Amino acid sequence: MKAICLMSGGLDSTVTAYFAKLLGYKIYALTFDYGQKHRKEIDCAMRVAKILGVKEHRILKIELPDSSVSALTTNTINVPEGNIYRTEIPSTYVPFRNTILLSYALSWAEAIKADAVFIGANALDYSGYRDCRPMYYEILQRLVDVASGVPIEIKTPIIKLNKREIIELGSRLDVPFEETWSCYQGNERPCLRCDSCLLRAKGFYENDAADPALTEKEWKTITAQLLGRYSKVE
Amino acid sequence: MKAICLMSGGLDSTVTAYFAKLLGYKIYALTFDYGQKHRKEIDCAMRVAKILGVKEHRILKIELPDSSVSALTTNTINVPEGNIYRTEIPSTYVPFRNTILLSYALSWAEAIKADAVFIGANALDYSGYRDCRPMYYEILQRLVDVASGVPIEIKTPIIKLNKREIIELGSRLDVPFEETWSCYQGNERPCLRCDSCLLRAKGFYENDAADPALTEKEWKTITAQLLGRYSKVE
Repeated sequence: MKAICLMSGGLDSTVTAYFAKLLGYKIYALTFDYGQKHRKEIDCAMRVAKILGVKEHRILKIELPDSSVSALTTNTINVPEGNIYRTEIPSTYVPFRNTILLSYALSWAEAIKADAVFIGANALDYSGYRDCRPMYYEILQRLVDVASGVPIEIKTPIIKLNKREIIELGSRLDVPFEETWSCYQGNERPCLRCDSCLLRAKGFYENDAADPALTEKEWKTITAQLLGRYSKVE
Repeated sequence: MKAICLMSGGLDSTVTAYFAKLLGYKIYALTFDYGQKHRKEIDCAMRVAKILGVKEHRILKIELPDSSVSALTTNTINVPEGNIYRTEIPSTYVPFRNTILLSYALSWAEAIKADAVFIGANALDYSGYRDCRPMYYEILQRLVDVASGVPIEIKTPIIKLNKREIIELGSRLDVPFEETWSCYQGNERPCLRCDSCLLRAKGFYENDAADPALTEKEWKTITAQLLGRYSKVE
């Protein structure tokens, strides 16, 4: 059994790829260089895929039609900070990004007759992106059933897990969390302030574990932020 | 009103873009350099878009995950010749190509708040590609409705027209057919043998017109081929 795994180098997609491996799939990893500021995650994806022992890893450099609209791809828009319970779509949203990435994954899947495409989409502790919702994947599966010459299943194993559960699952699967990168900023170290940093820290905190990707000092800084801002965190 | 028009430089997508203009849309043309052998169509797309008077024209260079599977992108597979009534999927099929191209078009559409995306997909005189069927576009529209932050309509105005009707429509809209390119081969002149050349010639023939993109000699050659092979053509 073969599976294409979208691996961004982040925590969610890494846990998803480890889960696919657990299920017995040979992993064909696919990573995109789409001009994201946080390019460090591409190096992380390469290291993590190697540790996981993937069959093949492709890194596709793609150009988005309009990269000026998202804080992930332009410096003229700021990455939002410190609001993990937002309800509106944040400025990090790249229109149809997951659709673009998935269509490439599906193209490769049909070409090598892979059985599945795994994506670490998550509808709970997420940033409000529309293409992370279960309904999106239900309709996409119908599109794939019509468009593909071979049966391909879209797999979203962590779509309904919260960050604490994703990290718990990853721990059981020996995911090398210290090699993953979640921060949306393009700095050398995680900014400890963006949504992605805070969501990740919250997950480790609720799991009674420190994030092994952070130094002790960084961990203290971010947990203090969490405790200060969100009285619900215990 | 704004519309993204996928313009390949071929006959179908050119007629579709002219139709979009007729309907009053400002046209944002999108063309892909995906390593196709018939790169001449990219030059044609540029000329045709200019004649049409598009608001903006973007040419995106993209890398397909596995270009070795299609006769359109590799020299190790031959472009099929002389069978326009085939029922199986031909070797020119690029897995999920339209899905990749459309996801880029949709990304741009959402970014600039375009009202529609036009694609010259055709389900009649076509080459058997699954992503040219109406059902594919019905499901894609549902996916867009879920994934997009702005309403975007996928428009396939010529999906149920035959080649003769497409050419008839194009004539009424003053489409510069002589600037369009349909041949799948990467030669200086149309090969006059591939499915795409034959379908196009059949359309002009049934319209009692010669293809203005061909020399008189080329037109005679290809109509002789059509008459020799397909007794149904009158």
